[in-house]
Amino acid sequence: MIYLDNAATTPVNPKALQAAWPWLTEEFGNPSSSHELGQRAAVALETARESVAKFLGARASEITFTSGGTESDNLAIIGIALANPRGRHIVSARTEHQAVLESLEFLEREHGFEITWLKLDEFGNILNFAQALRPDTTLVSLMVSNNEIGTIHPIAELAKHAHNVGAFFHTDAVQAVGWVNLNVKELGVDALSISGHKFGAPKGSGVLFLKSGVAISPLIHGGGQEKGIRSGTENLAWAVALQTALEQLGDQSQESARVAKLRDGFIEKVLTGCLFARLTGDPKNRAANLASFTFSKVGGEALLLELERHGVIVSSGSACAAGRNDPSHVLLAIGIEPEVAQTAVRFSFSHQITEAELDTAAKALLDSISVFI
Amino acid sequence: MIYLDNAATTPVNPKALQAAWPWLTEEFGNPSSSHELGQRAAVALETARESVAKFLGARASEITFTSGGTESDNLAIIGIALANPRGRHIVSARTEHQAVLESLEFLEREHGFEITWLKLDEFGNILNFAQALRPDTTLVSLMVSNNEIGTIHPIAELAKHAHNVGAFFHTDAVQAVGWVNLNVKELGVDALSISGHKFGAPKGSGVLFLKSGVAISPLIHGGGQEKGIRSGTENLAWAVALQTALEQLGDQSQESARVAKLRDGFIEKVLTGCLFARLTGDPKNRAANLASFTFSKVGGEALLLELERHGVIVSSGSACAAGRNDPSHVLLAIGIEPEVAQTAVRFSFSHQITEAELDTAAKALLDSISVFI
Repeated sequence: MIYLDNAATTPVNPKALQAAWPWLTEEFGNPSSSHELGQRAAVALETARESVAKFLGARASEITFTSGGTESDNLAIIGIALANPRGRHIVSARTEHQAVLESLEFLEREHGFEITWLKLDEFGNILNFAQALRPDTTLVSLMVSNNEIGTIHPIAELAKHAHNVGAFFHTDAVQAVGWVNLNVKELGVDALSISGHKFGAPKGSGVLFLKSGVAISPLIHGGGQEKGIRSGTENLAWAVALQTALEQLGDQSQESARVAKLRDGFIEKVLTGCLFARLTGDPKNRAANLASFTFSKVGGEALLLELERHGVIVSSGSACAAGRNDPSHVLLAIGIEPEVAQTAVRFSFSHQITEAELDTAAKALLDSISVFI
Repeated sequence: MIYLDNAATTPVNPKALQAAWPWLTEEFGNPSSSHELGQRAAVALETARESVAKFLGARASEITFTSGGTESDNLAIIGIALANPRGRHIVSARTEHQAVLESLEFLEREHGFEITWLKLDEFGNILNFAQALRPDTTLVSLMVSNNEIGTIHPIAELAKHAHNVGAFFHTDAVQAVGWVNLNVKELGVDALSISGHKFGAPKGSGVLFLKSGVAISPLIHGGGQEKGIRSGTENLAWAVALQTALEQLGDQSQESARVAKLRDGFIEKVLTGCLFARLTGDPKNRAANLASFTFSKVGGEALLLELERHGVIVSSGSACAAGRNDPSHVLLAIGIEPEVAQTAVRFSFSHQITEAELDTAAKALLDSISVFI
């Protein structure tokens, strides 16, 4: 089996599980308990927080552990918007993840916020950012790299513009961990979401970076854990697993460059081998971890099944839309026709991907397509 | 070490971890992915849901997996109140868990709800329930058994009254799992919260039972997982662990009766051995899993440390108030003076507790007290 659906979820890194293990067995204390068992848990939690902060170039006090990327996105967007309503205007794009889109639609529907949806080119690049900003813009939310088409937004530049009008800037970095530099100081963002299960930590782990001094309303109220930003007994084991998975990522720029080169070879093989294949997303300005295509003549689901029979596991796009069969909202947002969007196939890679695996995958893809034409 | 702080958190049941293990290793699929790896995960998630539903006497479609008890409480209270605002009146009690209290205060502060706080006797029993209900009451939230004093509320009877005025009834059953019958049909509740780490599942696992047909607004928006009630990639491993921990509980009424008998012996030893010890909570109408006392002359923290030196791990009350040193809000709510409330010590038991351990604990307690008088 060649698993090329890493953008949906990754295998758990055995070292991350190993690091979590003691906190699931003998060291089972509640970090809020004052006895030693609890206090050892509290120390481990703060150590995890410091390590995550270091990875992001942040302070430990700016790191909140959550149950995942979706919660982090909701907390950032709803929490910042409600705590800083100003003019109730938000800027975002239709290519964002459902967790962002649905949080924004909640604010629009229930709290009277107005959302300006940015214009995008055919690759998902933003066309009219400066014009969309207004003096009453409270928040901008734009992802680092797209989870379906890989296009990277120039976050540092966008955040600077946003700050010029006094808006906060949140970025969904869920797909970018390990592939794009996520130093929050260099990005200049006020909030950044990550999800553990996209980089070798388990499902149910996530982080929100929130810049010191930015007011936020919690989504989950209670005992005041995580400095009151996220109440509930901390899932310490998964915080340690997330910490360890991040620490295991190694030199990301070098890894990214290696995988980007393999990816480009893969894309070339697919485009030359299948004349009606079309790459989605920006051909140059894209994260190394994915290559996605539409195949105008070949229905997506049937092709996926055929690929699976060849031992290649991929997806038609985001797994996060919970089994819906609608065409991808991302592809529609960049102007692809619904019938063509439904032929999309996304290949998403791990850091361990090899040239041989991609050669096999390309061959399997072309063989699979030949079944249908 | 004798660990008597099970109300703060329990050790993870090794069988629960073992059941979760495959879903953290080779079976790492995203339950929303359409390929086989994902579909096997989806099947396991639904199997876990059915098992939890069976435990609660509910239907599988009425079970939502969450990240814990605090999230479940927030989702139930805020979600039901906002989706069914009617008259914006809620009835609850000051002895509820912080997750309930803070959710209610959020509704009061941000959404104009009015909360009627019930009158309680010195044991935490409710005095004026029928009078507190109004035609505009939307929701009642009252716990099954108290996490600090153990007092049990007569949920079935209270829920019937609430339904007579058209109000929904939510119960925080976090401390009751394994100790009190939680058949939702017999209780007659519309929503019920449980937290995995209080009964041998890991921290970060929880469930909300929501009766079919009850409208709810989600707290976390996104890909529409959990029928749209709780978006975000499911923490399948912890859902399976929670399922398994519930399945391992065995015959609860028999277990409860055994532990209740041991607890009564323990209480008697403490009260006869220390003349200024006072049991908190109802002497009869209490969950088997805990015994808590105040010691009017002996400061709580110092006594806890002394007990820890004797190898007995206990707490001054809820661990969930995140390390605050304020006197317990529960004890204040039942009329105990703040100085006395600060001398509280809570002993909370597992199903594995033995008479010998409780004898040792009682002796350690009396020895520890003698240090201070």
